[in-house]
Amino acid sequence: MRAATSAGSVSQDPADLTAARADRSGWPSPAPPAVVVRAVGVDDVRAVLRLAHEYRVPVVPRGAGTGLAGGAVAGPGELVLSLERMNRIRELSPADMIAVVEPGVRAAELDQAAAAHGLRYAPDPASHDISTLGGNIATNAGGLRCAKYGVTREAVLGLDVVLPGGELLRTGRRTVKGVTGYDLTALLVGSEGTLGVVVAAALRLQPIPPGQPATVAAYFRDAHAAAAAAGAVLAAGVTPALLELLDARFLAALDAWRGTDLRARGQALLLAQTDGSGAEADADRLAAAIREHATVVEISTDPASADELLAARRLALPAIERLGRPLIEDVAVPRSRLAEMVEAIARIGERHNVVVATLAHAADGNLHPIFVVDPAEAAGAGAGAGQGGAELGGAALDPGAPQVPEAVWRAADEVFTTALEMGGTLTGEHGVGLLKRRWVAAELGDGSVDLQRRLRAVFDPRGILNRGKVLPDPAAITDITDATSIADTAGVVNGAAPEGAAATADTAAAPGAAAV
Amino acid sequence: MRAATSAGSVSQDPADLTAARADRSGWPSPAPPAVVVRAVGVDDVRAVLRLAHEYRVPVVPRGAGTGLAGGAVAGPGELVLSLERMNRIRELSPADMIAVVEPGVRAAELDQAAAAHGLRYAPDPASHDISTLGGNIATNAGGLRCAKYGVTREAVLGLDVVLPGGELLRTGRRTVKGVTGYDLTALLVGSEGTLGVVVAAALRLQPIPPGQPATVAAYFRDAHAAAAAAGAVLAAGVTPALLELLDARFLAALDAWRGTDLRARGQALLLAQTDGSGAEADADRLAAAIREHATVVEISTDPASADELLAARRLALPAIERLGRPLIEDVAVPRSRLAEMVEAIARIGERHNVVVATLAHAADGNLHPIFVVDPAEAAGAGAGAGQGGAELGGAALDPGAPQVPEAVWRAADEVFTTALEMGGTLTGEHGVGLLKRRWVAAELGDGSVDLQRRLRAVFDPRGILNRGKVLPDPAAITDITDATSIADTAGVVNGAAPEGAAATADTAAAPGAAAV
Repeated sequence: MRAATSAGSVSQDPADLTAARADRSGWPSPAPPAVVVRAVGVDDVRAVLRLAHEYRVPVVPRGAGTGLAGGAVAGPGELVLSLERMNRIRELSPADMIAVVEPGVRAAELDQAAAAHGLRYAPDPASHDISTLGGNIATNAGGLRCAKYGVTREAVLGLDVVLPGGELLRTGRRTVKGVTGYDLTALLVGSEGTLGVVVAAALRLQPIPPGQPATVAAYFRDAHAAAAAAGAVLAAGVTPALLELLDARFLAALDAWRGTDLRARGQALLLAQTDGSGAEADADRLAAAIREHATVVEISTDPASADELLAARRLALPAIERLGRPLIEDVAVPRSRLAEMVEAIARIGERHNVVVATLAHAADGNLHPIFVVDPAEAAGAGAGAGQGGAELGGAALDPGAPQVPEAVWRAADEVFTTALEMGGTLTGEHGVGLLKRRWVAAELGDGSVDLQRRLRAVFDPRGILNRGKVLPDPAAITDITDATSIADTAGVVNGAAPEGAAATADTAAAPGAAAV
Repeated sequence: MRAATSAGSVSQDPADLTAARADRSGWPSPAPPAVVVRAVGVDDVRAVLRLAHEYRVPVVPRGAGTGLAGGAVAGPGELVLSLERMNRIRELSPADMIAVVEPGVRAAELDQAAAAHGLRYAPDPASHDISTLGGNIATNAGGLRCAKYGVTREAVLGLDVVLPGGELLRTGRRTVKGVTGYDLTALLVGSEGTLGVVVAAALRLQPIPPGQPATVAAYFRDAHAAAAAAGAVLAAGVTPALLELLDARFLAALDAWRGTDLRARGQALLLAQTDGSGAEADADRLAAAIREHATVVEISTDPASADELLAARRLALPAIERLGRPLIEDVAVPRSRLAEMVEAIARIGERHNVVVATLAHAADGNLHPIFVVDPAEAAGAGAGAGQGGAELGGAALDPGAPQVPEAVWRAADEVFTTALEMGGTLTGEHGVGLLKRRWVAAELGDGSVDLQRRLRAVFDPRGILNRGKVLPDPAAITDITDATSIADTAGVVNGAAPEGAAATADTAAAPGAAAV
């Protein structure tokens, strides 16, 4: 490994190891991993996976550590393979309208680079400033404009992936269309680092729509009415570039923080944007469709005042964070059930006496119930957290944070179950990670879970990649009883660490607010 | 099987068996299959696949038989499982903007049913009147408007699939977004009937864009200039709903047939449509972007005259068919290489002295070189066809048609190779089937082919489903040496044929012209 990872670095610095225990899910591992290897090139990744496969060392691929489902948290005996330093945009071809990137590039960076050519990278997870494209690909991230312009899967044309054992697999192509063989690209997108490690991606770029977008802010008597209005928008044949719903909790938090009086206009907000040559006409159609449901409707085509209207969405999470630590959930329901689900979440919060604020990508039926853990309450709670729910207990954001009250997890459980009962899904865009494994079989069925385990074994026969993530009951995936022991993992890598590499201490967790 | 398929029908009528030898690829099987079973419900499909798995009977799933790559042709000893009678739209939900369909529904039927609610099914393969949605899903079919609105994969939210052995697998969901587990839906889309048999699909519908589309017809001095203009359209930031290129051969065929004088305006035609509220503004931008390249530019926003402009595209294939039998090819290249590929195809045709006309979905870089086999020439050829090229020789459309000259196959071979050299793909939207197996490894690499074989074995461990299709060297997929013999296949099914079922004689091949 010495030669192969000479350009990378190997760290056992306690700060590095501790940082890799957590992401932004509130689901840290019980103890630090054995080692962090930072790859700077494909050869590093190949060398690590070759050795890890040979010695059955469990590997956790990791980008910026901004995940919300525990998909990149690492625990005892595990090797963290950080891709953050593989952060070059290798190519940006305006003529082909594609970019080829390494996994550590941030979505916003690519978007900005493309803008110089009148192009953009359409998927825009709210975390696009802090999360990496590798992580976006691992979770098939959505974003604000994905109802109109597609989620990450639609933007990924091809991948270079290193498989356990070190083999390099190329999937897909540089063309927009192509159907030769099975769609391995789509299978890998959203696989949360359990099938292979993405080392490069060919991504589709799209033209920036011409003209200025038009922005509509509409207020409603309650979130149910706002959700119904979102349905009316779609029924009117308008496909907005953005359609975001904020409930009364968000408006209250914004008012309290910023001294505004949004709640004088209504108890829920629907923010919409239309774009392209017909932006104004579409905004008018949209406004007409929702006016009867709304208390107040404001339209702007001027960038400055549009920005003002959008401020509520942009500042929504920071506003909520002032109330306590946010645990960000993510479910999706069929579009017709959006209003019903918004109500169900509020009722569940009341029943369990927990604070829950809801925002939604309303055009997708994708809701983010945000549980707010009061700092005082959180500090006093947690006695039972590690006991009853090995699956559910745990702290958040950083491994030292206070534990999450059981009531919050019980409410979350009910939210997930309700979404499934409505024909929805456990996760619209954040992934399963560790956090939602226990509900996966309820959504997919045992037959599908079993099939997926067997597919996983084709890519990773020894079960070394992000084991225990995504699919329930990892023991069933592969026999890992003969895996290298915890002590061995450190030893194997330690012996091979290049000189001077272990001192690196930058953290893998990105700064900045959590984002949805 | 008697009980389980009591509602279906089993046929050994020679007309049925003969029809199942061919599709529209020019690649019939050497002899008829053993039997055709027409399923009318999921239980029929489960019963057939349970028995077929048990007795190792090879099964060829088949819809309308309109495929262009031999993916649904059936040969000796094979059981044809026809899904054409499973043709109900089970549900159409305007509120959820989805439809749930059986595989035998035609895309155009669904599109029409959705139109009653202001919605549409976006993927519009040119075959949408005659091909089934099951076939569209099997090949991940594209279409004229897919550059803006997505290919079939983007429209498929979930599938019900029967696996070999008879198990029913549900993939995906009714929600627009969802990332729980691996994307089996996307893996199955485009798998050409080799992983499972689709018995139902939840499909996304989209609003019909408001207003009238605007149509632009532009003529150019040659196809190279037209292709360059297509690039200029995209570079100008316009995303047309349709952008079709026709070369001089097509214009000549249209003029000869219809008495028009298109070639007085230019030697190549680019047809574009913009849609939505900004259709006219976008058409103006588009026209401005291409004007310097063009000899003539015509714009229309009036439905009747737009229809007139689009007639050239609609009638292109019928016009070519008057010259001889068309063999429709399908490659895609990175967008920047479109003009180069158009030229390469023409040169290859000249070099091999074969007639080739090219049309292209120009916004996607997806080209359809159409080789025209002159009836006289075709009748006289074919002596060598069955000899040198077991892979390439063969007749077309119906099994009795004259063989394709070797020169055509040699030219096709060069077209495929050239597309791959340009970083393109063997097939943009028609699939690999039998026709392109020999080039698959050149595109995907041996490692990927091997991985795909192992994935296939997870779904179909005995290799009974559409064996020999898509991946090269079927023998490597699974050991089929102990498969039921040809005589046995007929015997197994024959013994179970319900009374009166064998007399059904309608053909599985759809009427109407081939379409791209």
